[in-house]
Amino acid sequence: MNIDVYATQSGVADKEIKDRVVVVVDVLRATSVVVTAINNRCRDIIPVIEIEEAVNMSKNYDREHVLLAGERNAQKTDGFDLSNSPLEYTEDVIEGKTIILTTTNGTRAIKKCGDARDILIGSMLNARAVADALTKVGGDVAIICAGTEGKFSLDDIMASGLIIHEVLNSNTDVKLNDLGLVCRELYNTYGNNIHDILKDTYHYNQLLKAGFKEDIDYCLKENVIDKVPRYMDGIIKL
Amino acid sequence: MNIDVYATQSGVADKEIKDRVVVVVDVLRATSVVVTAINNRCRDIIPVIEIEEAVNMSKNYDREHVLLAGERNAQKTDGFDLSNSPLEYTEDVIEGKTIILTTTNGTRAIKKCGDARDILIGSMLNARAVADALTKVGGDVAIICAGTEGKFSLDDIMASGLIIHEVLNSNTDVKLNDLGLVCRELYNTYGNNIHDILKDTYHYNQLLKAGFKEDIDYCLKENVIDKVPRYMDGIIKL
Repeated sequence: MNIDVYATQSGVADKEIKDRVVVVVDVLRATSVVVTAINNRCRDIIPVIEIEEAVNMSKNYDREHVLLAGERNAQKTDGFDLSNSPLEYTEDVIEGKTIILTTTNGTRAIKKCGDARDILIGSMLNARAVADALTKVGGDVAIICAGTEGKFSLDDIMASGLIIHEVLNSNTDVKLNDLGLVCRELYNTYGNNIHDILKDTYHYNQLLKAGFKEDIDYCLKENVIDKVPRYMDGIIKL
Repeated sequence: MNIDVYATQSGVADKEIKDRVVVVVDVLRATSVVVTAINNRCRDIIPVIEIEEAVNMSKNYDREHVLLAGERNAQKTDGFDLSNSPLEYTEDVIEGKTIILTTTNGTRAIKKCGDARDILIGSMLNARAVADALTKVGGDVAIICAGTEGKFSLDDIMASGLIIHEVLNSNTDVKLNDLGLVCRELYNTYGNNIHDILKDTYHYNQLLKAGFKEDIDYCLKENVIDKVPRYMDGIIKL
């Protein structure tokens, strides 16, 4: 199995994901939100790129069955029901609902993987479940990190490292690209103390300053959810 | 001092290098060639992007004063005097000559840094000299890796790690971006055995298969040259 990791979506050519299973990772916080929401039994999640698009789409639904969710600059969008904090996505709030989600990096990355064979939503929360799904499905994999503001973001690299670590636990015949090797090495070195390597990084600190320490602590939990959301035909479902 | 590292040239916005000192790194092999050639007293080096452009430019020179140099797919271009192997750039061959150089990744990266305050050519060979120059000049730095075929290439990341390591030896007030942190960590872990981390990487293996083991061994030598080539007005000089 080949696993190629990409630091941002912009550097990935369509041909590089064609016929591959893609895992999208935006650990702080979009894909952690998606994994949490699916685990807490929302009906489905529709990722959209623009706020206006989200608002217009919500008009197609009975208001009590839909939630508008997302962030710009890490803050809840005005008039929306939920922000990009996974801690808000509790079962009592979201069960059975359709969530229309727009975030700065993560939803863009998810929507741009159209040519892939299969699109899975990955995070640290469900890394082992993602690894099990990859091993079961077989074939080559592209892990696409959302990055932060179009840039290399170490939180996503560490989450990719955890997914690779879990794959390697059951499958030793894995060939990694250069960035995949970096993910594996950094996770091997810092997996036991992930805050230690992330404490000097950009996105982690932006969120810390904005008061989201609990979100960070939650998003960096490993293998606490065994669900793997899939994106297909514009919708994320279990 | 801020040091931001970029894995490829394509992800760097002009505003991100404006007013910064840029270090271009293409350790296997273009910037190692440039550093070696300058150390062995060529007159200057003109990086060009296209082969045809190189040939046309050479016609402006007395043939005995100019050398055509470069590669495509790691092999010497037909009719050229030199390939992209730094071991060919010996003093008896290049002293006093103008070298017109075209390579797949490195020369492109050098030429696209036009808005920078200063453009230095970096490699493992001259890492300490580059670090000393950065400390002396002061101000913020962007290390731009050429990458391989537009992709993240771990050899360049390790060379950037060495440059950062050398800067940190004399200047502890340095803030790194996320990729800069990765460079520092990987160099700290693998600096003493760089072949061990690179042996599974793409570009290293491509060159090994093509018979360039001696080139690799040479390019990964640390701090053996104390010259820092500069790119200005289309020309690389000491």
